[in-house]
Amino acid sequence: MTTGETARDMANAIRFLSADAVENAASGHPGLPLGAADIATVLMTRFMTFDPTQPDWPNRDRFVFSAGHGSMLLYSLLYLLGYKDIGLDEIRTFRRLGSKAAGHPEYGHAAGIETTTGPLGQGIANAVGMAIAERHLSARFGEDIVDHRTYVLAGDGCLMEGISQEAISLAGHLKLSKLVVLWDDNGITIDGKVSLADSTDQIARFEACGWSTFTCDGHDQEEIAAALEAANASDRPSLVACRTTIGFGASTKAGTAKAHGSPLGTDEIKAMRETLGWPHEPFEIPATIVDQWRIAGLRSSAARRTWDQKLSSLDAVQRGEFDRVHRGDLPSGLKQGIERAKREANETRPDIATRKSSELSLAIINELVPETIGGSADLTGSNNTLTGSLERLDADNYGGRYLHYGIREHAMAGIMNGMALHGGVIPYGGTFLVFSDYARGAIRLSALMGIRTIYVLTHDSIGLGEDGPTHQPVEHLAALRAIPNLAVMRPADYVETLECWDIALQSRTMPSVLALSRQNVPALRTDQHDENRSARGAYELASANGEAAVTLFATGSEVQIAIEAKAVLDRDAIATRVVSVPCFELFERQSEEYRAAFLDDRSLKVAIEAGVRQGWDALIGRRGLFVGMDGFGASGRAGELYAHFGITTDTVVSRVRAALAATPRAEAPQPDGS
Amino acid sequence: MTTGETARDMANAIRFLSADAVENAASGHPGLPLGAADIATVLMTRFMTFDPTQPDWPNRDRFVFSAGHGSMLLYSLLYLLGYKDIGLDEIRTFRRLGSKAAGHPEYGHAAGIETTTGPLGQGIANAVGMAIAERHLSARFGEDIVDHRTYVLAGDGCLMEGISQEAISLAGHLKLSKLVVLWDDNGITIDGKVSLADSTDQIARFEACGWSTFTCDGHDQEEIAAALEAANASDRPSLVACRTTIGFGASTKAGTAKAHGSPLGTDEIKAMRETLGWPHEPFEIPATIVDQWRIAGLRSSAARRTWDQKLSSLDAVQRGEFDRVHRGDLPSGLKQGIERAKREANETRPDIATRKSSELSLAIINELVPETIGGSADLTGSNNTLTGSLERLDADNYGGRYLHYGIREHAMAGIMNGMALHGGVIPYGGTFLVFSDYARGAIRLSALMGIRTIYVLTHDSIGLGEDGPTHQPVEHLAALRAIPNLAVMRPADYVETLECWDIALQSRTMPSVLALSRQNVPALRTDQHDENRSARGAYELASANGEAAVTLFATGSEVQIAIEAKAVLDRDAIATRVVSVPCFELFERQSEEYRAAFLDDRSLKVAIEAGVRQGWDALIGRRGLFVGMDGFGASGRAGELYAHFGITTDTVVSRVRAALAATPRAEAPQPDGS
Repeated sequence: MTTGETARDMANAIRFLSADAVENAASGHPGLPLGAADIATVLMTRFMTFDPTQPDWPNRDRFVFSAGHGSMLLYSLLYLLGYKDIGLDEIRTFRRLGSKAAGHPEYGHAAGIETTTGPLGQGIANAVGMAIAERHLSARFGEDIVDHRTYVLAGDGCLMEGISQEAISLAGHLKLSKLVVLWDDNGITIDGKVSLADSTDQIARFEACGWSTFTCDGHDQEEIAAALEAANASDRPSLVACRTTIGFGASTKAGTAKAHGSPLGTDEIKAMRETLGWPHEPFEIPATIVDQWRIAGLRSSAARRTWDQKLSSLDAVQRGEFDRVHRGDLPSGLKQGIERAKREANETRPDIATRKSSELSLAIINELVPETIGGSADLTGSNNTLTGSLERLDADNYGGRYLHYGIREHAMAGIMNGMALHGGVIPYGGTFLVFSDYARGAIRLSALMGIRTIYVLTHDSIGLGEDGPTHQPVEHLAALRAIPNLAVMRPADYVETLECWDIALQSRTMPSVLALSRQNVPALRTDQHDENRSARGAYELASANGEAAVTLFATGSEVQIAIEAKAVLDRDAIATRVVSVPCFELFERQSEEYRAAFLDDRSLKVAIEAGVRQGWDALIGRRGLFVGMDGFGASGRAGELYAHFGITTDTVVSRVRAALAATPRAEAPQPDGS
Repeated sequence: MTTGETARDMANAIRFLSADAVENAASGHPGLPLGAADIATVLMTRFMTFDPTQPDWPNRDRFVFSAGHGSMLLYSLLYLLGYKDIGLDEIRTFRRLGSKAAGHPEYGHAAGIETTTGPLGQGIANAVGMAIAERHLSARFGEDIVDHRTYVLAGDGCLMEGISQEAISLAGHLKLSKLVVLWDDNGITIDGKVSLADSTDQIARFEACGWSTFTCDGHDQEEIAAALEAANASDRPSLVACRTTIGFGASTKAGTAKAHGSPLGTDEIKAMRETLGWPHEPFEIPATIVDQWRIAGLRSSAARRTWDQKLSSLDAVQRGEFDRVHRGDLPSGLKQGIERAKREANETRPDIATRKSSELSLAIINELVPETIGGSADLTGSNNTLTGSLERLDADNYGGRYLHYGIREHAMAGIMNGMALHGGVIPYGGTFLVFSDYARGAIRLSALMGIRTIYVLTHDSIGLGEDGPTHQPVEHLAALRAIPNLAVMRPADYVETLECWDIALQSRTMPSVLALSRQNVPALRTDQHDENRSARGAYELASANGEAAVTLFATGSEVQIAIEAKAVLDRDAIATRVVSVPCFELFERQSEEYRAAFLDDRSLKVAIEAGVRQGWDALIGRRGLFVGMDGFGASGRAGELYAHFGITTDTVVSRVRAALAATPRAEAPQPDGS
């Protein structure tokens, strides 16, 4: 424990590293690192348990830097504490292309960055997810093995975002007592004083959500420590409101929005050196200060070694499981279980909604994969996300594996991200596909971070019927496919649904969306294929009699329309093949040769999907036929809606006939051939 | 005022119309109408001021039905109160295709539906927007002319959604005392009891946000009335927590999730008829009850006539302005003002960011169009949304025209929708393009409702630089273009920005997005065109020397790359034209003939946009060249990032040369020609 003068100098080391790095980069946010340096110093040197030499130690305390714009605070800490990935070179190249010290903290760039932050409020939700994972794993493996805290540093912006309310209300409900949010209460946002836009009593708000609250002077390290002590003693999650001055130490800009997001300027920093008594050159930290930081960084080494021994003393099965789930490996029995189910499905050929297929898949998966944690944003019975073996995860039973997230789609996504980042668990959660809009801020981060978060999005088209256009996704498949590194999967039947679930679980560096029907669909994959054909992204479900004159592409509940249209066209001696396209993203990753077999110029191309056309031109070409939606849906019965919007076998057949009549194949190929 | 037995029967009329309509539709949500019937009866018969014969009366109280799934409550009210659009025929065809009584209330389907609801929480934000518009217009036109209340009926789900926190915290800050939220506190959600997922003290939470709070037994009409009296007397916005039983009256399902979202069943309804003493057949409401409702519906006729007289007594200029802004017409001087600015820009040719161009445009617009209300989600200086003539709109100055929305993108969008729905004002608001993700739930509703909400989304590409991939949109243009009926505009320079603002203001039935650069771009439109060329969606900015061998399509900050590439290719005697594409949606609405001129098969097509390819194939074909992004961005300087990701003149030129070399034009046209 370091206090007094030394501790102040340690905080000032953060301040000058940050201010000088921002100055050097000519871009960045000095205000928060200057203001929160004391908080961070106390937290890191007196409270947090971690080991910079083993940054992935499963039982480390987590530090979630929700106010990601102040990234230099985090980089300064990582350097000073002795994390290897961030050295002075990285800090000198802060915000430059290729630097690990990116503008905002990017998960995967450097050890010690627990999550990607910058979009405000997300860190709070991530932290709630980590705290849930911690309690759950502790219930599973014992308090000796899993027993750590999760600390968040959040700013005013994080608290104003709606996702924070969703996350803190669930955290309070779950009594996540090892979660502490440190609020950098500086009263300033980009536009000026917080009082321009907000008069919320945050203390009262958190208390209304079941949190303990504490306040302190964020520049008095002893007060901060006392508040943290009290927070850690609480049986509820805790808010520690730290009154700070943004840009603390900056002579003219401290306490104003000017300190927030721009370099302070050389004169300002020069004066700050005098004010804070810091005569050292930029990027020069006195060895004594670095030493103090490094000593602090090694505070928990003994605890970590003790923990290693505890882990070793676990029985072999438990030890094996602990290691396996933390490596992210799947249990060996899963592959067989899914293949068995596929073979059974070839016999039973169930005529069920793909959301039901997903439930059947999950019934298998949840038995075989004990690290799944399921849930839904209050649509459990609609999303079919709960299977028999899952108990409810709540404050009385952290060992449960099913979370009622409440009507909180955005927090659910952010919390699942936090669980996936924590490790040891695989989160999946459901809502309606249309409400992916509410969660999109967090879904994008799943993809950017490349983590295994699984979204179960049911009611995936006008096929949901009477609830009408507010509930009917039409643009959502396109909008989700537009996100890089996101596997958007829309299975056609139970076999494809099993395959898509298999893909989602295998996919360690890409999150998944399963878009699932409300309405029943027939079994279409009645072949015997142990191979996961959906993993190709697109594959020939039904081949043509001879060379195909027509290729029908379809996804999900519309694949049956393609199959029916093929039957009609075949009777007309129009050789037709059907390509099921469960996942664009995976298809794009196939070899040029594999893709070319579907994209050749020889057949008339038709796509059938109860969504907008956008994205399909890449497969069918600009002049390919598209049978789908070109506007919002309507309230009515599913079958009537499909007829009303012309997404029918008849439409497909008549449009194909018309197109072939206009351009007889014998005379000329498709005009655009693509 | 109606009380006692009659009032109970009036509430029961709602209950049975609702339960029977859901039964008849074999789909729907009876729980809320049964539970909230007493609240609605008290509100409509004793508090709300409106006139069913003039549903658009500007000074009517607004009733926002945030818990839209309980739509039969609203339809029952509209029928009973005598609104012409909803008769028993509509109620009998509830949820059928073509019925005005859609599954969820759809704005525009029937008079009296103030906003489209169903996605939870949106109604609360809409109502905050309406309440802001009311105070603002009152400040502008006087309390005699604008002086109405806004009531919201919200459920547990609305309160759990994060958007509710964003909206209520701003409403509390703005002291919107004429806003009342009636919370249907039934303790039940779809998954079961609220207590499965939430333990929030909502009363305390609202008080923390500066609201007055009141509680009542939601089945005791006198208690409800007393609470509403108190709420209306408060100088702050008010929450009235009404303890209700979901599915009130249903014999076995009342008070349970079973009453929420499915028909009750004939036996249950039969028993309910006995329990509530309602011997009438389905859809038969005794004439005496209908009469009582109709009398209640006409309660405010005199008040409305008095108001008409007050309006008539306004001075002619004020009266003209009041009528104009409520018709939604723009002032006559705007067209000239924009044309003048375009002509001046042809002289000055400013080399500025399009966000700055937007600010210059707004400086003109805000002078000429006094009904604009601007704002930003705490990025005022970055979004360039504040112009000199705008005062701050806050609790001390509702006449101001600039709102600091705080870091609340979702609520900002929902509030802007509410303002647009209220009428009399034209809202625009800014955030970063990447954070459109946070607001997407409400942006979709702008498009679905077809209202004039204007989104100013700056920092529209990797060109924002060092803030890195969390802040760099790559998929957002595609994702927004995927939404039907949304004009996503990305202007290339100041002249196009002026044109896009003109389009946004003219567009009464389609919301707009302006995607704007952080970085400077050169003036490219240096021609003299009074015509709004951007309104075509795409147009030839620079023509080829002779027949074009190459067509370069580009948007926004990448149009300059196209122009530079054309200069290089022209020197190689490769005839190149440049097509600026400020708006896909508007281009798609052009005639086939107009479009064909750009989509012909004769030239090599290339698109340049610092976003993902998705959507571009519709213009350039599957084999057209695309110069843009195929994954997330990175932290670094803007110029370095453009070079790193190959979005440069050199890339365009070299890829064009390579493509033409592979397929010499003299020998063969483009393989797919599209």
